[in-house]
Amino acid sequence: MKKTILLLFLSLSAFAQIDKVEPPFWYAGMHNPELQIMFYGKNIAQYEASVSNNVVIKNVVKTENPNYIFITIDTKNLPASDFVFSFKNKNKVAFTKNYSLKQRRANSAERKSYDSSDMMYLIMPDRFANGNPNNDSNSATTEKANRSLPGGRHGGDIEGIIKNLDYLSELGVTALWSTPLCEDNDKGYSYHGYGQSDVYKIDPRYGTNEEYLKLSSELKKRGMKLIKDYVTNHWGAEHWMYKDLPTYDWVHQFPGYSQSNYRMTTQFDPNASAIDAKNCMDGWFVPSMPDLNQSNPLVLNYITQNAIWWIEYADLDGFRVDTYSYNDKVGIAKWTKAITDEYPHFNIVGEVWMHDQAQMSYWQKDSKIAEIQSYNSYCPSVMDFTLHDAFGNVFNEDKDGWNDGMIKVYDNFTNDFLYPNVNNLLIFAENHDTGRFNQNYKNDIKKYTMAMTLLATVRGIPQLYYGSEIGMAGDKGKGDADIRQDFPGGWEGDKNNAFTKLGRTEEQNKFFDVTSKLFQWRKNKSVVHFGKMMHYIPQENVYVYFRYDEKETVMVVMNNSAEAKTIKTNRFQESIKNFKLGKDVLSGKTVEVSNEISLEGKSVLVLELN
Amino acid sequence: MKKTILLLFLSLSAFAQIDKVEPPFWYAGMHNPELQIMFYGKNIAQYEASVSNNVVIKNVVKTENPNYIFITIDTKNLPASDFVFSFKNKNKVAFTKNYSLKQRRANSAERKSYDSSDMMYLIMPDRFANGNPNNDSNSATTEKANRSLPGGRHGGDIEGIIKNLDYLSELGVTALWSTPLCEDNDKGYSYHGYGQSDVYKIDPRYGTNEEYLKLSSELKKRGMKLIKDYVTNHWGAEHWMYKDLPTYDWVHQFPGYSQSNYRMTTQFDPNASAIDAKNCMDGWFVPSMPDLNQSNPLVLNYITQNAIWWIEYADLDGFRVDTYSYNDKVGIAKWTKAITDEYPHFNIVGEVWMHDQAQMSYWQKDSKIAEIQSYNSYCPSVMDFTLHDAFGNVFNEDKDGWNDGMIKVYDNFTNDFLYPNVNNLLIFAENHDTGRFNQNYKNDIKKYTMAMTLLATVRGIPQLYYGSEIGMAGDKGKGDADIRQDFPGGWEGDKNNAFTKLGRTEEQNKFFDVTSKLFQWRKNKSVVHFGKMMHYIPQENVYVYFRYDEKETVMVVMNNSAEAKTIKTNRFQESIKNFKLGKDVLSGKTVEVSNEISLEGKSVLVLELN
Repeated sequence: MKKTILLLFLSLSAFAQIDKVEPPFWYAGMHNPELQIMFYGKNIAQYEASVSNNVVIKNVVKTENPNYIFITIDTKNLPASDFVFSFKNKNKVAFTKNYSLKQRRANSAERKSYDSSDMMYLIMPDRFANGNPNNDSNSATTEKANRSLPGGRHGGDIEGIIKNLDYLSELGVTALWSTPLCEDNDKGYSYHGYGQSDVYKIDPRYGTNEEYLKLSSELKKRGMKLIKDYVTNHWGAEHWMYKDLPTYDWVHQFPGYSQSNYRMTTQFDPNASAIDAKNCMDGWFVPSMPDLNQSNPLVLNYITQNAIWWIEYADLDGFRVDTYSYNDKVGIAKWTKAITDEYPHFNIVGEVWMHDQAQMSYWQKDSKIAEIQSYNSYCPSVMDFTLHDAFGNVFNEDKDGWNDGMIKVYDNFTNDFLYPNVNNLLIFAENHDTGRFNQNYKNDIKKYTMAMTLLATVRGIPQLYYGSEIGMAGDKGKGDADIRQDFPGGWEGDKNNAFTKLGRTEEQNKFFDVTSKLFQWRKNKSVVHFGKMMHYIPQENVYVYFRYDEKETVMVVMNNSAEAKTIKTNRFQESIKNFKLGKDVLSGKTVEVSNEISLEGKSVLVLELN
Repeated sequence: MKKTILLLFLSLSAFAQIDKVEPPFWYAGMHNPELQIMFYGKNIAQYEASVSNNVVIKNVVKTENPNYIFITIDTKNLPASDFVFSFKNKNKVAFTKNYSLKQRRANSAERKSYDSSDMMYLIMPDRFANGNPNNDSNSATTEKANRSLPGGRHGGDIEGIIKNLDYLSELGVTALWSTPLCEDNDKGYSYHGYGQSDVYKIDPRYGTNEEYLKLSSELKKRGMKLIKDYVTNHWGAEHWMYKDLPTYDWVHQFPGYSQSNYRMTTQFDPNASAIDAKNCMDGWFVPSMPDLNQSNPLVLNYITQNAIWWIEYADLDGFRVDTYSYNDKVGIAKWTKAITDEYPHFNIVGEVWMHDQAQMSYWQKDSKIAEIQSYNSYCPSVMDFTLHDAFGNVFNEDKDGWNDGMIKVYDNFTNDFLYPNVNNLLIFAENHDTGRFNQNYKNDIKKYTMAMTLLATVRGIPQLYYGSEIGMAGDKGKGDADIRQDFPGGWEGDKNNAFTKLGRTEEQNKFFDVTSKLFQWRKNKSVVHFGKMMHYIPQENVYVYFRYDEKETVMVVMNNSAEAKTIKTNRFQESIKNFKLGKDVLSGKTVEVSNEISLEGKSVLVLELN
């Protein structure tokens, strides 16, 4: 009998190793003192946990899966320190696990974030620069590098980004948004990174957690910010937890797979059926991306702590949140609030891909639209997709109809009052999910210049997409890979190296120079970052608007007509006031503004008035 | 000397006749006791006014034009009575004017109005029926009848409407909206009536004020309501006051004419320049329509009292207000509030021709959207122009794309939460300013049936446009006259008399019968008037929605695909609950709903579930 017990004990011990502890460590002095640590190991739930150093266990959750135990401890007043979790069986310690509370950086909670003074640059790391060819393939991840496959892994990595930070700086970038860098171990088509298999680990094909930290500090050295692309809505089907779910409802099951209907309007539509709303929010994007159940407090805690862990660990400056409006709306609001409770100035931009300003405003923090339904997402920033819609064809339009040409851009700003904070809208002509601007506009430098001028001078946070600044094009109609091509010069042996002036073609330099000129100028233009806007109804496809504050006035004249135009300026008297001259940012020329202004077809003036 | 004074006195007396007193009489016991009476006569401002019966004069306003005097009296506690205004010169009464306060109808202030239980029928009176050929032309108005001119006066009149009220009743009409009936003395193109020359007088080509009153009572006899089309924004250039303006700023002058830019978004756009906003609101629609200045209290009082006078005089049941969002927004809110303060249940629908639900909601009473700017228009109802936009082409679409076909209709309702009161939206497929439905859809009875079914079953107040119910078409592209053709049978000698079943062609009867069937059914369907709505995302161009309350459920299945469809009903379990059968309103047939439902291409079922 005694022998039997001993054998049982040994057999339990043998199984009871701890495979994962998440978060792997934590920080002392957080705003929220509760920390829920997940221990994962075969049959771990059979053990009784305790902890050293008089650390208080507030709660222990075991689920239907005996391989998980969730232990909530109270970190209030705990100093940075190490302590030990013990797991007992019949009062005997079967095994132990060390755990650390680390010291936070100075002023970590009060960290600044990105805002409308920034220019955000979006890269897909697999497609930007391959700094370390040795990590392109490895034994820990399934898909190997194959640059000949448009949708394959091409080898771009963190080291490649770090090597080209001076390029970004020269361009005028002040904040870097990279699509997800955590491990995505899908068998194929894993380069986009949105199907994550381990959210505490940088994908080894991009580098290591330490390298990611280095990217952050190298950016900071150059006055640039790091924005992490956080995915709350789903993981990849290769996520280790999906293969051994802590709870059946950790992900949404119907049972099994059900595709989202993508009708995000069901989130607020008072006429929507519950089944349609459920299918939108709980349905999966694709079969390879299990949809996380944010209404499950364990899930919510897990992704909240993971997000905070990355901020602390990698000294992050902000988030971009994928498919924000597909999440359970109550859950995602809790997630967002928890993060901004920890970091009051931390900016988070939600991807809210809708085509109606009231609907987009719904998702911005303190929206009066959402207040109609007593909802607050707490998400400080949303993406200005209706402006993106306008970018789609406006520069090809040379009609003068009610809705034609620059009216489409003008109209976007007439609804600005619907947003609680227009300065905190992310504005963009394109991103990694849309057709490329230079494809739509056939690399027309004039049209590109107008687009960049808009981004550089209207309200909001301008976001550029890697490569367009050297004229890269790509056809969404041919599939995502076409809009996510490799940046020339990022790979050894690339004949064209667009990272340097000498390496760029004449054509590439034209694109680069106008981009750089605008965004270098913008860097210190507080009037553009935070000033007011006054615009005038476009006439004959000419749009005139002003950014102004108590100190400065910038006048933008955009002639989207193919014809040269001379505009009388008396109509703009409210804004021009007593200014007589304007210095054009692009040409450096001084222009008289008190009477009339002439400009070529498809051209723009950015005038600093004086 | 004495002789000179006498001569002067005589000469003043000779000039000092009173040509107009407005309002011509008033009512005792109004909520607002102040009544501002305008006296108009040559040099009348030179006289000192007094009034008999101890009536208190609260205020006298004289303007830069000596031919006007505005006298405000206090009617509080005054009984219905007659009294006398005396106008003195040097203490001698030069002339007098009798004035009456009349008795109000019982419960006048508490009058009911139209709401979503109604079906509103819009006519243009010149084009509906000529009941009295003797009034087609007359000496008091310039333009004479000429039915051969598409844009001329055709002779339709109030008597013609009255003669055909039984036709309207048979159709299912419960409320009649006629375009303006007051005098419009433009030299040409006066039939539309929006350029009014006297807002206290029915145009003699339509009849008399007494006939209008008769129309009201004849409608009431049949349980129908009368809705006046009120124009606050402008008058006609032939208005007698415009020819002798009380004040320079009675109308907007720049000086002289300036056309509106029609960009109504400037009313709320925080980036709008003042000049653009002014040009929208103060600019004129057309040179023949002087734009009234509602920010002038005299103007505001004038149009407010005029509106109230008509309600009392003609026992009105509601207003439709033309170009609501072009008015001075503060002024029009005061006007609207003054009327609804007098008549708390009185419904007013504003024409707010915009293409964005947040923008339309802005103009509805107690809008949360307008509240962002601390604005409240107090206008109880607005027109659902985005639904109208959807009607434009949806029934021709047989694709299954993201935004195609019935999705366009579905999408309109997803934003219902933006409106403070969705039941009080006016819904319509067309009106006198838009292309005619049957033109767009080539008199396709199936498409017409789908459109009428939508109007008869979704939330809001359905509005029909005269003639469509017998298949009338008309091409807006050919000009307004084409969409405002004469109703067949309205003129003596018309070969086709569509007012009677026997007179209608077989084709006309098809249109009439489906319209009548739907709207007669709707009359007593409280569940459609005030019930909730639940709709399901259209699939394969089939739209399914339910109207339901505690007592009843109506299921609408609209197959906008050209193909026959069989739909599984388990997806609609939330709404179907335990119902097994549905009786189709159109065919009378009973359909099983518990498993699947089949229906032809381009067809609809309106099922009362049981």
